[in-house]
Amino acid sequence: MNAKVVLLPGDGIGPEVTDQAEKLIRSMSDQYGLGIEINTGLIGGAALDETGEPLPEDTLAMCREADAVVLGAVGGPKWDDPHAKKRPEQGLLALRRELKLFANLRPVRLHPALAEISPLKTERIKNVDLMVVRELTGGSYFGDKEEGDDFASDSCTYTREEVERVVTMAADMARARYGRLTMIDKANVMATSRLWRAVSAEVMEKKYPDVAYETMLVDAAAMHIVANPSRFNVIVTENMFGDILTDEASVLVGSMGMLPSASLGEGKAGLYEPIHGSAPDIAGRGLANPFGMLGSVGMMFEYSLGMREAARQVELAIWNAVSAGQCTLDIGGNLRTDEAADAVINQLGDIH
Amino acid sequence: MNAKVVLLPGDGIGPEVTDQAEKLIRSMSDQYGLGIEINTGLIGGAALDETGEPLPEDTLAMCREADAVVLGAVGGPKWDDPHAKKRPEQGLLALRRELKLFANLRPVRLHPALAEISPLKTERIKNVDLMVVRELTGGSYFGDKEEGDDFASDSCTYTREEVERVVTMAADMARARYGRLTMIDKANVMATSRLWRAVSAEVMEKKYPDVAYETMLVDAAAMHIVANPSRFNVIVTENMFGDILTDEASVLVGSMGMLPSASLGEGKAGLYEPIHGSAPDIAGRGLANPFGMLGSVGMMFEYSLGMREAARQVELAIWNAVSAGQCTLDIGGNLRTDEAADAVINQLGDIH
Ligand SMILES: CC(C)[C@H](C(=O)O)[C@@H](O)C(=O)O
Ligand SMILES: CC(C)[C@H](C(=O)O)[C@@H](O)C(=O)O
Repeated sequence: MNAKVVLLPGDGIGPEVTDQAEKLIRSMSDQYGLGIEINTGLIGGAALDETGEPLPEDTLAMCREADAVVLGAVGGPKWDDPHAKKRPEQGLLALRRELKLFANLRPVRLHPALAEISPLKTERIKNVDLMVVRELTGGSYFGDKEEGDDFASDSCTYTREEVERVVTMAADMARARYGRLTMIDKANVMATSRLWRAVSAEVMEKKYPDVAYETMLVDAAAMHIVANPSRFNVIVTENMFGDILTDEASVLVGSMGMLPSASLGEGKAGLYEPIHGSAPDIAGRGLANPFGMLGSVGMMFEYSLGMREAARQVELAIWNAVSAGQCTLDIGGNLRTDEAADAVINQLGDIH
Repeated sequence: MNAKVVLLPGDGIGPEVTDQAEKLIRSMSDQYGLGIEINTGLIGGAALDETGEPLPEDTLAMCREADAVVLGAVGGPKWDDPHAKKRPEQGLLALRRELKLFANLRPVRLHPALAEISPLKTERIKNVDLMVVRELTGGSYFGDKEEGDDFASDSCTYTREEVERVVTMAADMARARYGRLTMIDKANVMATSRLWRAVSAEVMEKKYPDVAYETMLVDAAAMHIVANPSRFNVIVTENMFGDILTDEASVLVGSMGMLPSASLGEGKAGLYEPIHGSAPDIAGRGLANPFGMLGSVGMMFEYSLGMREAARQVELAIWNAVSAGQCTLDIGGNLRTDEAADAVINQLGDIH
């Protein structure tokens, strides 16, 4: 197959977790005889420091050629000046846009062993198994901006087609799961939300009469995600709401460090990143939880390499490592980043 | 004093809870010999049905003359057509804008008796006592909109002055409490957030060197509000983020129905409403929790009538009613809406 994978370590704990991703990819490549080719590129603050650009041309060119991009995290206090013209996050945003990755998939599932460290009471979180599909290349992330000392504006825009394609992807996922989809918006205030509501209803009526469909206001959703998280199955929403709600949902399962994500477009190429940030406060100390990153690599096997079984294997290996307490401090273990990743890779050998 | 108060029942459970507000206001007025004058007006869906406008001229004129407006809730499935030109919520939004109520104060405090029904583990929620100051007349709520079948846009705008005045109000509150303020934004993406960040830093540096000040990204905040709610004290944020985060925070304390709010502008006139919505599913059944509404009336005594002691009395009476289990189903009692409100009014007699 000779798939090409690009690693973009980025900033903070990014390099530590992409190191683990690389080990896992090499191990899977050997096990399955895949001959995966791995290249590494600059992004974010690291790229700014070295080249003056948060997404250097070279990196983008490499990513365009790749089957999958595996990213650590970007950003940090060093580059936090609000007046700076160029910021690390622009590298990530530009990459999403240039690769046309319009759907960000964020599965949130609770490992029973982590119920104890979840902030929620156990009876509230059991059975949480949701998939958030966040629109990733529209909304106020990419609209026109005005930026002055006394006035600023951001424009949030959506087209019918942008809504259609991501709702379609979410509805397909819902069909493959429990057949339930919740579309989250703020239709009582936002014009873009009313477009989302109209277009989603059309898509669902025409093509997914078998999928149970509901809409919910974003403020109500922010409530229900804490109060009754297991009532949700697949969620689809616009870019900014998705950013906020997925971070909110992520704490339910004990640690942000656990959660993977995949960003997809029309084809099979994808971007895989843990949903945690660059966590500069713990960078370089072997404390980062690598499981969100490794889970993202698992998603890469499913969505970009078409190897669903391999993906399942990675997921199970992580699950087993958590069950065995072979994990980092944040989820109650006492392993370092690399040791926790090795535990997963060792588990892999036992799963078939 | 002869203060003038306007009651706007609105839709769903709105009328049920404003009935209780009226009883409480009359009882306080008698007790203190205030001679408060109460008038009632139409708003929301009820106003749409009767007059074709969500905020009739008469209502607005009455509110402009008043010292305080007490509102139930607006909206419901009956008026939910996304294509409708006029919607109930527009009445509330227009009222906020016309009365120039730029700051929405939402205190969130846990009554110990409700720790059990909070979705959070008890050790996570004890000591939660936060005040969210939400900007209320700017952002994408009031910017230009484009609305078509294939394209829509919302513009989110802020001026320096809009940011300054609400941050100043929040910093004053922080000074009067524990001296800590968190400003929440999305400065790594939004131009308006970068304006917020720059202006807030200036205000805090110049006028509030004694207040501990931090900034936080909205996605991280959505996480921390669930994971470590007691780390926050006073929060200030823009309109939409405030809408989402306060609803999220509200479930921590057991029931949305508990939470009051006050919306203030430059003067003393204010709008007081519970943060819950119109809850059409339980409307007319005596199930609505009146305490958020009654707590809002308490805030009215403090902020619009300058009677801090009276406000404290209302707050304590609600607190005592909860302690005594004299409350509605949603918070573990077995009283109906009006009985729970009567319990508070009875408690009032005993507090001095
Ligand atoms: C780094 C930032 C721009 C980014 C976003 O808001 O999309 C991050 O929070 C995420 O969720 O991937
Ligand atoms: C009804 C709606 C427009 C309103 C808002 O979003 O401001 C409500 O959710 C609130 O928080 O008061």
